[in-house]
Amino acid sequence: MSKKIAVLGAGSWGTALAMVLDENGHDVRLWGNNVEQMSEINNDHCNARYLPEIQLSKSIKGFTDLKLAVEAVDVVLFVVPTKAMRSVAHQVASVLTSPAVIAHASKGLEQETHKRISEVLEEEIPEELRKAVVVLSGPSHAEEVAVKDITTITSASTNLAGAELIQSLFMNRYFRVYTNEDIIGVEMGAALKNIIAVGAGALHGLGYGDNAKAALMTRGLAEISRLGVAFGAQPLTFIGLSGVGDLIVTCTSVHSRNWRAGDLLGKGHNLQEVLDNMGMIVEGVSTTKAAYELAKQKNIEMPITEAIYDVLYNKTDVKEVVSHLMTRDGKAES
Amino acid sequence: MSKKIAVLGAGSWGTALAMVLDENGHDVRLWGNNVEQMSEINNDHCNARYLPEIQLSKSIKGFTDLKLAVEAVDVVLFVVPTKAMRSVAHQVASVLTSPAVIAHASKGLEQETHKRISEVLEEEIPEELRKAVVVLSGPSHAEEVAVKDITTITSASTNLAGAELIQSLFMNRYFRVYTNEDIIGVEMGAALKNIIAVGAGALHGLGYGDNAKAALMTRGLAEISRLGVAFGAQPLTFIGLSGVGDLIVTCTSVHSRNWRAGDLLGKGHNLQEVLDNMGMIVEGVSTTKAAYELAKQKNIEMPITEAIYDVLYNKTDVKEVVSHLMTRDGKAES
Repeated sequence: MSKKIAVLGAGSWGTALAMVLDENGHDVRLWGNNVEQMSEINNDHCNARYLPEIQLSKSIKGFTDLKLAVEAVDVVLFVVPTKAMRSVAHQVASVLTSPAVIAHASKGLEQETHKRISEVLEEEIPEELRKAVVVLSGPSHAEEVAVKDITTITSASTNLAGAELIQSLFMNRYFRVYTNEDIIGVEMGAALKNIIAVGAGALHGLGYGDNAKAALMTRGLAEISRLGVAFGAQPLTFIGLSGVGDLIVTCTSVHSRNWRAGDLLGKGHNLQEVLDNMGMIVEGVSTTKAAYELAKQKNIEMPITEAIYDVLYNKTDVKEVVSHLMTRDGKAES
Repeated sequence: MSKKIAVLGAGSWGTALAMVLDENGHDVRLWGNNVEQMSEINNDHCNARYLPEIQLSKSIKGFTDLKLAVEAVDVVLFVVPTKAMRSVAHQVASVLTSPAVIAHASKGLEQETHKRISEVLEEEIPEELRKAVVVLSGPSHAEEVAVKDITTITSASTNLAGAELIQSLFMNRYFRVYTNEDIIGVEMGAALKNIIAVGAGALHGLGYGDNAKAALMTRGLAEISRLGVAFGAQPLTFIGLSGVGDLIVTCTSVHSRNWRAGDLLGKGHNLQEVLDNMGMIVEGVSTTKAAYELAKQKNIEMPITEAIYDVLYNKTDVKEVVSHLMTRDGKAES
């Protein structure tokens, strides 16, 4: 049955998700605060900056007025950057008049508080206005979804009916959705995998090969799972689409910002040079700090995260940390 | 302490492992049945066919006489092809005069019986001649080990002391070994991941992108884990080096024979054409048949393996099986 859905955030991922929902027959309202961009969506039916060369359906409506965008919707899907999440959620709470399923598709932890995005949404949107809180996450380049290439993704919520509703809205012949009740594991995996992507890029920058990269990804997965489990995640979630699946896409694609930042570190640039060169936010850099602090707090061993933290924040030489990682005592695998 | 070790099989992997042991100060006897090749190792200190451009240490000794090679050794390490394993093990049993640790580094299941290699070794080598049976497995291109690039690997045995001995023989600044007591999981993961590599190649041949490949690898890992667990493996082993680690290396490298066979299938060639084109054994092809039959026997759902089986053995169109996989009912992730 057709639903009314507000998609908040008109970057490449928000726009690609809006396209899937529109194709599945839903009434899609895409919200962004850039007037020219929204006008382009309504008049030219494209999003030239974020999804160049893609034609959007005329039935996707762009909104700059948040109150109008979320009016009488069944679902509000947040796809805004992590650092804007709390303020947009706060605004939504002030204009939403009837309860909706609250979903998000962001991959990060809130800076300063290190909270998961669903926790931020729960704090800002009163319980009587939300039927469920759901996260959508998995291995997904927006550019591939926009051309209807095959993609699989996880819809996670402690409220299974909410996860199944989101699954049913998105499922079609090229977009396959699996449900999962472990929202903590899905959100932690999605955020923490960016640390490992920075590391994979650094190994590449240093000139190491496939064996080293597979080692880093596997041992990295083991340590981010340990941290996630300490915060209540299920270990097997990290073997799923939002864990290893997303890790594979992020660590094996030169399109990943986190991977590219790591590559520059491996080539000998320091953090400031890397950030200047990238000219945009690299989530993995702040997530490394968050994970480092969370690991200390729970007394979890995370040698790879610590090594990347030392390179980023203590100016330790990147070659030295690799050598240190390799010469630790022999261990059991788990 | 220096040990005496026979490495049976002088392909690229056997030779690379012999190089690590030699560098660590052990007395290494490399056995193969090709007289010219062994003479090249002893006289020219190289293995031109399998590791071109690599200089071997003069202290690695080549043997064609199995009895001499295994005389008074502490460890016998089998690195022969899966299909030769039983007959070589049978010969070893007839010439070994004192008990040794029996290890192997093969990635397959025996054809016809579908047995794991450690089971074959236990059947052929009498209990009084083996101190432990250990498997070495992980993400490892031999060519990278031979140039001392970073590699990590798992040493698995139900006999932890045996696994730790093998760990201690190999560990050095570029070769890191983790122990694991789940030999079933390590052997099943190493063999079954080749099925998924065939599938990853097929998706590439069909023109699909990174999202589809990550989906296949993740859902493939889930189903090979299910089969492994039905045969007594621990689920977390599949998230380790011999599982997801080796899967990543095999599915993201064009050097993998299994991946290349899949790529040809995806481009529309049939099984016979693929095998003719490859001109050598593709383990993933026979492992697909083994897994298909084992899954039926244990009533395990393996949709990806079944799909690849249908393409290989029932001439089903490869595009049709992808479409069928995507349009199944929505599921929970685990």
